[in-house]
Amino acid sequence: MKGHFITFEGGEGAGKTSILQTIKQKLSGQGYKVIATREPGGIEISEKIREIIHDPLHTAMDARTEALLYAAARNQHLVEKVIPALEQGKIVICDRFIDSSLAYQGYARGLGMDEVFTLNQFAIRDYMPNLTLFFDIEPKKGLERIKVNKDRERNRLDLEEIHFHELVYEAYQILAEKYPHRIQTIDAAQSIEMVETDAMDRIISHLQGK
Amino acid sequence: MKGHFITFEGGEGAGKTSILQTIKQKLSGQGYKVIATREPGGIEISEKIREIIHDPLHTAMDARTEALLYAAARNQHLVEKVIPALEQGKIVICDRFIDSSLAYQGYARGLGMDEVFTLNQFAIRDYMPNLTLFFDIEPKKGLERIKVNKDRERNRLDLEEIHFHELVYEAYQILAEKYPHRIQTIDAAQSIEMVETDAMDRIISHLQGK
Repeated sequence: MKGHFITFEGGEGAGKTSILQTIKQKLSGQGYKVIATREPGGIEISEKIREIIHDPLHTAMDARTEALLYAAARNQHLVEKVIPALEQGKIVICDRFIDSSLAYQGYARGLGMDEVFTLNQFAIRDYMPNLTLFFDIEPKKGLERIKVNKDRERNRLDLEEIHFHELVYEAYQILAEKYPHRIQTIDAAQSIEMVETDAMDRIISHLQGK
Repeated sequence: MKGHFITFEGGEGAGKTSILQTIKQKLSGQGYKVIATREPGGIEISEKIREIIHDPLHTAMDARTEALLYAAARNQHLVEKVIPALEQGKIVICDRFIDSSLAYQGYARGLGMDEVFTLNQFAIRDYMPNLTLFFDIEPKKGLERIKVNKDRERNRLDLEEIHFHELVYEAYQILAEKYPHRIQTIDAAQSIEMVETDAMDRIISHLQGK
């Protein structure tokens, strides 16, 4: 793998989606070849899968169905967009990846992180991220931020109770401890400028260290 | 599991879809409580997944994505429709199930039957069919039947070459040898009336033997 595969992770309202765009521009400005993308989605088939997952009417969706749909969207997005870019030596920054499935379906929905990891190996094979930034913010604070942001797309996951988001948060902390070489934790409760600077510093260190 | 879970399998043009409706009526006529359903689909979320899988425009779909989408549709269909019916003691006859994934994605698309079986265990857990009827017809004959039937829905899988359908056929024969207690082979090249009678006899023997 010639490029660098970097993923952004965290609960709702951690600010990762907007930070991702700024980071992309800053890296491009420094001459790096970089693409920014997101999960689930990023290409046509995966965006259609995203619509099924996020449809607020799909309250009957079983946790295993959800995990399988995320894995399907992940595989297609990898094959069509991420792998070709990595093979061209680009930096790929992706909003959510396997850790989201481990945290949301594996831990918060109770399917088991190991079982969801095994499922995802079918989808990602050897394409684990080189670096993952976990944007760490307490669920209560994150959800307050979302309330204020009127432009944000509302989806089925926004209907979950605070307890669900607390489980997701707990899961990310477990993952950060389990994968200390891959996952770096960023204090996302800071001002957005501070978070951006912190994220940028970590990425530059990673790129220069490789 | 109180009910009986019966699946119909086979290549294109084996006649299983129309036979399934006749069998359902005959069993109902004999006083059995029975539902007939199909994969991928059978309920709203799974029908939406079916649309993504079958869309003739989705030629970029990777084999792993396809396998994961089938497994997602399968799990949701099981949870919402099949398991509740089985728990009420009903007979569930389902047009396609796990063997289709093993034959189409595992064997014909080359992902490996074992790997696709492992993936599907995440979706079906212990819900293997009690009886599977494999409607055995040579791919050439099956495809000729399809050509004649103008009412049949055309989908992305119909764009495959004859070689693909031959691999599917080979896979079903391997599966029938591997699971002789579960899978019974029916000569689907006979007249439709003969095939129906044969299928009905096998099902009645199974129900009485249990």
